[in-house]
Amino acid sequence: MSIQAVVFDAYGTLYDTQSVAAITEDTFPGYGDLITQVWRLKQLEYSWLRSLMGRYESFSSLTRDSLAYTLRVLGLKDDGEAFERIIEKYLHLDLYPDAMAALTAMKDRKLAILSNGSPDMLNALVHNTGLDRVLAATISVDVNKVFKPSPDAYRLIETTLSVPPASVLFVSSNPWDACGAKAFGLNVAWIERVTPEAMALACVESETIAPLTMFKALRSQMDELGFAPDHRIHSLSELPGIAASA
Amino acid sequence: MSIQAVVFDAYGTLYDTQSVAAITEDTFPGYGDLITQVWRLKQLEYSWLRSLMGRYESFSSLTRDSLAYTLRVLGLKDDGEAFERIIEKYLHLDLYPDAMAALTAMKDRKLAILSNGSPDMLNALVHNTGLDRVLAATISVDVNKVFKPSPDAYRLIETTLSVPPASVLFVSSNPWDACGAKAFGLNVAWIERVTPEAMALACVESETIAPLTMFKALRSQMDELGFAPDHRIHSLSELPGIAASA
Repeated sequence: MSIQAVVFDAYGTLYDTQSVAAITEDTFPGYGDLITQVWRLKQLEYSWLRSLMGRYESFSSLTRDSLAYTLRVLGLKDDGEAFERIIEKYLHLDLYPDAMAALTAMKDRKLAILSNGSPDMLNALVHNTGLDRVLAATISVDVNKVFKPSPDAYRLIETTLSVPPASVLFVSSNPWDACGAKAFGLNVAWIERVTPEAMALACVESETIAPLTMFKALRSQMDELGFAPDHRIHSLSELPGIAASA
Repeated sequence: MSIQAVVFDAYGTLYDTQSVAAITEDTFPGYGDLITQVWRLKQLEYSWLRSLMGRYESFSSLTRDSLAYTLRVLGLKDDGEAFERIIEKYLHLDLYPDAMAALTAMKDRKLAILSNGSPDMLNALVHNTGLDRVLAATISVDVNKVFKPSPDAYRLIETTLSVPPASVLFVSSNPWDACGAKAFGLNVAWIERVTPEAMALACVESETIAPLTMFKALRSQMDELGFAPDHRIHSLSELPGIAASA
């Protein structure tokens, strides 16, 4: 069946969540990268835990909660203003360099985002980076009040775009998201945003592995969840070819 | 309302999952502790992700999957036999030193375990450590095919023991489990199994934080999930007093 829609995860796939590190580093010198890694880990954990507890809160809210947790665990004190400045950056994340050209090259198909982000966060982000001009829809899981990888989150693609799962190519850098989408029945391309650190992990002694390296490795390696993506890519520029031949 | 039943989480609360480290260290010198920490992190992630995906597999199965993931990410090769030896140790975890005395002191109440563990793992563990002589029930979430912190997991306490949530004292060292139990309506004691490393985290420079320290801190600090435990304890020996005064 031909691909009618290409749907992207937002955070970590189109947008580089690590781009917050310039602000966190500026605010807490020496901790910039570590904050973003721990923050991201807990942000994900809280999305899964709250979904499972049946206690959904918006991604915007748990992004604040997970930042508060991170600063507390690292023993860092903020003055409230710094906290808001870091949070604000989440609305101005950088697009990955390969994003805009890939989207433009596929503009004859329905293009959309399906993200855990709350509508206020996503709309600001998409507007601030000009993606609103190429996307047919920016879908937030907030409609169904449950986060990915729940089937109720992926179901929103068909509800919104009227394209059945078998005609959708879903793109994510997040291994658990790629597995969840595959389990739901979408065609899945996993973009491996491999860091040199993660690649080199196997070559160093355990005592010399930095926590940062370890965290990056844990976010970038495919999970053992019983599902494998259909395509494994290293740049979004590979997508037009995949969409055309599927 | 008086406490009629005291129900314990198993892994990390009564049983020290870190006690696997002797075997992992013996098998992969220099990586013993790191393996157990990454393994535990992914074991939890997989339990939440599979629950959310609606793709439940037994804890026994995802304990194997998460170990396979851990060895792969760390670039460690095993010969199959080593893998089985490590897995086998999960059936012979050490009881924390404060466990048996605390349980014995409360033997006039209904005592039970509510664990993510699959029945085969839990029954072996409870038998191997003699807890079968003091427990009224060893409850596995496997009955409802969904892991904690889903309400359907905590519901099994009343189903099995016929004690309503308000008369149950639930004990866990896992912050997310304490929050989940509280959200469900149980009385909750969170046992802080604080490691000296986690305590000292705030006092060191970020470059010198080891990944191990970071992982331990992330498992031992209370989460920001909107729920707080009723009691915060540092030893299981505090429980008989709490149960009596509740």
